[in-house]
Amino acid sequence: MKQYQEQVNKWFKEKKWDYWDPLAIITRLFEECGELAREVNHVYGPKQKKLEEKKKNIEDEIGDIIYTLICFANSHDIDLEEATQKSIDKVADRDKDRYKK
Amino acid sequence: MKQYQEQVNKWFKEKKWDYWDPLAIITRLFEECGELAREVNHVYGPKQKKLEEKKKNIEDEIGDIIYTLICFANSHDIDLEEATQKSIDKVADRDKDRYKK
Amino acid sequence: MKQYQEQVNKWFKEKKWDYWDPLAIITRLFEECGELAREVNHVYGPKQKKLEEKKKNIEDEIGDIIYTLICFANSHDIDLEEATQKSIDKVADRDKDRYKK
Amino acid sequence: MKQYQEQVNKWFKEKKWDYWDPLAIITRLFEECGELAREVNHVYGPKQKKLEEKKKNIEDEIGDIIYTLICFANSHDIDLEEATQKSIDKVADRDKDRYKK
Repeated sequence: MKQYQEQVNKWFKEKKWDYWDPLAIITRLFEECGELAREVNHVYGPKQKKLEEKKKNIEDEIGDIIYTLICFANSHDIDLEEATQKSIDKVADRDKDRYKK
Repeated sequence: MKQYQEQVNKWFKEKKWDYWDPLAIITRLFEECGELAREVNHVYGPKQKKLEEKKKNIEDEIGDIIYTLICFANSHDIDLEEATQKSIDKVADRDKDRYKK
Repeated sequence: MKQYQEQVNKWFKEKKWDYWDPLAIITRLFEECGELAREVNHVYGPKQKKLEEKKKNIEDEIGDIIYTLICFANSHDIDLEEATQKSIDKVADRDKDRYKK
Repeated sequence: MKQYQEQVNKWFKEKKWDYWDPLAIITRLFEECGELAREVNHVYGPKQKKLEEKKKNIEDEIGDIIYTLICFANSHDIDLEEATQKSIDKVADRDKDRYKK
């Protein structure tokens, strides 16, 4: 994850690009997630197409979501590895409690 | 609002259509909102197009969102007018408190 | 629908409030739709609660989404009735073609 | 990224958990993104709080989104590293063309 964050950061610096405004990135995140939702509804929703036809699109949309998150994280000095690890630990921890007795 | 809900209900009955599964409708809502987000980002985000070029699209996307909400509401016996009025009242009420002193 | 749009407009004028920035409204729409998604997942997702316990919350969240759309529409001179009618007509029209043969 | 995907996979196997249905995961993604939107609107929207107060929450919400994407990807044999790399390359490629002349 870190390498992707650095790759994007380096590249924005070279191009002298600024990251978008936070609200514009969130709006973009909405758009990208909406595209994933469309593809997933095509496979699992009421008008089904075969997963195989759609899998590449689904992968692409997920990649675009992560790219959008990288842009947001980079413009806020957020370490995505740390954030991801914390979320996994949180679910694991919640689960531990559930089975404690 | 009521008339739109009835219009859609009548029409689904005529066609003998069922409303989609709730999770599929929510996924569709995500998709439709994502399309609105894209159009709004085109006008107010970093790569701006003129509002005038985009206004029709924005209107269309909002209509699609409301249509999706009508489908969900109809399949759950929810009265959208009541729901809307309650939300307006809630904001008004919250506001009243804020200025009370 | 028109009456709700006018009610909100009148009230913002009285309070001398401005509508939020478009990107902030879209971000709020995302938040409100996310709250609906949570409630719906509680009923139809993997950890099910009874619909009856959750129906009020679902209604509330849908009302909040429509209120958010009203704010956006009002700040862009969009007539929600027209937008809704157009979306219904579009689906009806698409359907007509499908069954034409 | 790969290590997170494996960590979650291993753990679901140990617990004998199944991944949720795809539409339920998308609905959860909507919820998690909505929570990020709320936090970001708190900082950059009309009722501003300081970024410093909110940064931890924003990090947490982004982690939860990535965890949700990991669950979806794992249940569909999608390699998130590959997906991310492809999206970065796509933007880089689109950009290259733009500056070609």
